[in-house]
Amino acid sequence: MGFLRIAQAQINTTVGDLDGNSVKIASFIGRAKEHKADIVTFPELAVSGYPPEDLVLKSHFVKDCTAAVRRIAREVTGITVLVGFPDYDGKAVYNAAALICEKEIVSVYHKMELPNYGVFDEKRYFTPGTKSLIFSIKGVPILITICEDIWIGGNALEECGKKHAVAVSLNMSGSPYHAGKLSIQQEIAARFARSTGSYLCYNNLVGGQDELVFNGTSLVVDPDGRLVARAALFDEDLLVTDIEIDRAAKPAHPAGTSPECGEVPVVRGYTGGPREKAAPSVSCLPKREEEIYRALVMGTGDYVRKNRFKKVVMGLSGGIDSSLVAAIAVDALGAENVIGVTMPSAYTSSETFSDAGRLSKNLGVRLITSPIKEIFSTYIDRLSEVFGDSAEGVWAENLQARIRGNILMALSNKYGWMVLTTGNKSETAVGYSTLYGDTAGGFAIIKDVPKTVVYELSAYVNEAAGREVIPNSVIVRPPTAELRPNQKDEDSLPPYAVLDPILAHYVEEDMAPEEIIALGFDEKRVYDTIRLVDINEYKRRQSPPGIKITHKAFGRDRRLPITNRYFEYTSKNSKKKE
Amino acid sequence: MGFLRIAQAQINTTVGDLDGNSVKIASFIGRAKEHKADIVTFPELAVSGYPPEDLVLKSHFVKDCTAAVRRIAREVTGITVLVGFPDYDGKAVYNAAALICEKEIVSVYHKMELPNYGVFDEKRYFTPGTKSLIFSIKGVPILITICEDIWIGGNALEECGKKHAVAVSLNMSGSPYHAGKLSIQQEIAARFARSTGSYLCYNNLVGGQDELVFNGTSLVVDPDGRLVARAALFDEDLLVTDIEIDRAAKPAHPAGTSPECGEVPVVRGYTGGPREKAAPSVSCLPKREEEIYRALVMGTGDYVRKNRFKKVVMGLSGGIDSSLVAAIAVDALGAENVIGVTMPSAYTSSETFSDAGRLSKNLGVRLITSPIKEIFSTYIDRLSEVFGDSAEGVWAENLQARIRGNILMALSNKYGWMVLTTGNKSETAVGYSTLYGDTAGGFAIIKDVPKTVVYELSAYVNEAAGREVIPNSVIVRPPTAELRPNQKDEDSLPPYAVLDPILAHYVEEDMAPEEIIALGFDEKRVYDTIRLVDINEYKRRQSPPGIKITHKAFGRDRRLPITNRYFEYTSKNSKKKE
Repeated sequence: MGFLRIAQAQINTTVGDLDGNSVKIASFIGRAKEHKADIVTFPELAVSGYPPEDLVLKSHFVKDCTAAVRRIAREVTGITVLVGFPDYDGKAVYNAAALICEKEIVSVYHKMELPNYGVFDEKRYFTPGTKSLIFSIKGVPILITICEDIWIGGNALEECGKKHAVAVSLNMSGSPYHAGKLSIQQEIAARFARSTGSYLCYNNLVGGQDELVFNGTSLVVDPDGRLVARAALFDEDLLVTDIEIDRAAKPAHPAGTSPECGEVPVVRGYTGGPREKAAPSVSCLPKREEEIYRALVMGTGDYVRKNRFKKVVMGLSGGIDSSLVAAIAVDALGAENVIGVTMPSAYTSSETFSDAGRLSKNLGVRLITSPIKEIFSTYIDRLSEVFGDSAEGVWAENLQARIRGNILMALSNKYGWMVLTTGNKSETAVGYSTLYGDTAGGFAIIKDVPKTVVYELSAYVNEAAGREVIPNSVIVRPPTAELRPNQKDEDSLPPYAVLDPILAHYVEEDMAPEEIIALGFDEKRVYDTIRLVDINEYKRRQSPPGIKITHKAFGRDRRLPITNRYFEYTSKNSKKKE
Repeated sequence: MGFLRIAQAQINTTVGDLDGNSVKIASFIGRAKEHKADIVTFPELAVSGYPPEDLVLKSHFVKDCTAAVRRIAREVTGITVLVGFPDYDGKAVYNAAALICEKEIVSVYHKMELPNYGVFDEKRYFTPGTKSLIFSIKGVPILITICEDIWIGGNALEECGKKHAVAVSLNMSGSPYHAGKLSIQQEIAARFARSTGSYLCYNNLVGGQDELVFNGTSLVVDPDGRLVARAALFDEDLLVTDIEIDRAAKPAHPAGTSPECGEVPVVRGYTGGPREKAAPSVSCLPKREEEIYRALVMGTGDYVRKNRFKKVVMGLSGGIDSSLVAAIAVDALGAENVIGVTMPSAYTSSETFSDAGRLSKNLGVRLITSPIKEIFSTYIDRLSEVFGDSAEGVWAENLQARIRGNILMALSNKYGWMVLTTGNKSETAVGYSTLYGDTAGGFAIIKDVPKTVVYELSAYVNEAAGREVIPNSVIVRPPTAELRPNQKDEDSLPPYAVLDPILAHYVEEDMAPEEIIALGFDEKRVYDTIRLVDINEYKRRQSPPGIKITHKAFGRDRRLPITNRYFEYTSKNSKKKE
């Protein structure tokens, strides 16, 4: 035998569903055995689901996870299994991996590098491990790592892998997606492989969990950093890869103990009849628009289903945001599970009204019509008594959006449909939305998608379908909220082609206003935009969750205070300079 | 001279308001000089405001804070100043304290213990310091610590204080309030004082910042752990204390360098004429109900004012929650800045309607009446067309709450009043509320106040006023949402006297259902309650911020996933056992 057969189970877990996750893990162990694999690995914290957040602070939760790992272990024979779980050692809780062989938990590795930035709070939950774990299978030394462990160059794990000449490094990951992340993951894997001189098997999680979606695309990279195998994107997969072992390269510690790592457990792999070496499998990657679109589809489907909903309802305005959201929802849940509602007012043009109808026909979704004029005028009559004046102003514009929100919520309450909201990242950033109106709903699919990308994704929808799914008239019409006569987004905001880069610099890159202005943007536009972003933090705080697809999303990724006068300081000091 | 005069400036900062905070700091330095103090200290991160959250990730923010400290330093003469700011040393950002003397920043201390639990995320922002800082003033060695530094027993700072026989330890804190916290703070201060054999001057922040309120009550504790002085509760204060210095006790390192701490800077204090030793000042502490009430008053006033609002508007239902919220708002902002709105429906009893009127008279607040019957019936007519059946069900109940939310938001949009919501912690926990209805608003004052405590605080309001402010009929009436005929909270929920302890065990203490049942609670009630808490996470995520007054509040203090099937696991496995 000149090779090891390593199976990476790229599974879609659900947080807290210990039974469901255990059954899935057992089933993938079975599949790996069918493939005559020596070892099967799972993503980070597969037993609990990832990220379990404050569930880890409940001691009974951690105990239940440990019990689940023991139950899984009792069924393991003829293969070595590496599965992630939160481990309590009597003193502290660790982000751990259990090494299982012949019904026994042979050893447990504790993650050493705990990310505590961006969306991660791992130092809130876990104590870092202090010892690396190398195990030996068929004489081959293998290093175990968990996610962040391979992201920090020159750390103890890298040194350990190098020093002990491990042939293979395993990485169990829960690495959340954003556009551009796939190539970063591969670079990181390649860097670790090269620096340790080992094959790196990168087993990533797949699926959606609240605001995060995990892309999968588990990898095998050779010691020169070259891609050997890649699993599916945004789908469960079992990536089985045969890794040739160079018998000449003698490991420093093939078995026994190593001073830095403690004991080197020896485990068994496949012990049946002869196997034929198979060619590695490399999935194809789509272009950027398709990649983002599929992230949104998976994130939506998983949020709805994992929360035990079946159908969704949403307002169809005839605009591009709601059109794109409807297309994603149909791909995620099926047309029969998506209900559109058109709620025309006095300001709704016949064009947008008929576009909503065309879109619903193109997608094959049911369309409910519920005009808001009469309800609106009843409000106006009653509120005019209170206000003692006319029905114009932002309050009346917002009221229309709130009536629509009420109608959607009434449908949700009556039929158990989840309401999808349709706001994009550009709107969400500057607060161009009505709280309790168009922000009312359970999931905000495109809240991290800038308006310019909304256009790109909409074009992709039509291109992929090979027909006009989203009517062209929707794509070419200047954006409007239709809450007063002849309203256009550009009356209140810069053109999106200008707004979106300003927002990216400020929100995602944390640049100072002067730095953005130095890039050539108009000073007043920059300050006006930043002011809107800052004063609308309170709106975002009350908005539904949505899928992160950029480097930095609103939400746990960006934790700004509501009470925050820094903009006043910045703008005042800019004026001082003038 | 046998004493040191230490002034602790217990100030109310605003996050991001670098100019405002700097002016306040300068003004308190001036006051401390008037008192002929040797040294004046400030709370943690006083220059930036606390907690600055992700503002610290903006490099221009940290630079601006450093510039502000330098401006403050340029005006310092004749006194030593210790002020907190985020410091960037070219490599990393620290939670720091600047030691300022005669216009110079003499030294900078970096906080060594970074809390990353509960509401704290300090490992997200800061690198821990590695060196303690002792300075010497008039031959007296003094140790600098920042908040968490004194909370961890037996750490390097405690060892350093002990070893170098410091006479005084200074602690600059931003320690958020919860009921019961004051005695904990004093115990922690006493423990550190005893273990180091030094006086401990505990300078806490005061004021509200989003969901947190800081109680102040800065302390001086002697080396035996006895209370010497205490500043005001929930108010700015300058606590000036003369600390007698025992000349016999020779410090190990009165000046020069110490191997663990590096250089020991020598600073100057008061150098004017003779001073007479003054008696220390010890503020009185109120009883528990008054303490919580005053926390809510300060948190409300600061949230409204720091966000540049002046007036608030709220629904007055004639129930106890809205009555208490109105009383707090009046104490925080003045009766002329509180507007009540009564919005009767067909289900509103004449008793609750007249109680709303009596309450508004008792408080002296303006009351607007805006019945919702007509708007409601218009919705019902239009929605019946869509639904094809009658107007009963949760959707119609929720609709009434949403109409009221819309009316309050219309008033907010038109007049610029902030909407206060009135939900308590018991309701918030079990989701007994209407999203976008009674949860619609800018600030949820009592969201962390359990219903049983709502009663206690209401009784306190009347007792403190010496008259019936909250009508007795409001206090004795069984709680009802009045969204259908003869509705009572207890139709849907356990009595609050049973519900609140179950919630405290589950939400605040993270107990397992079986552990709560073992305390004598009914099994079905425990599981039903826990189920409601878990499935309503999505509602809480979209609710406005409110003031933390318990050990563990909903919000950043308790970060549970929305997508979370752990309840299903727990309850199924409980049934298995039966």
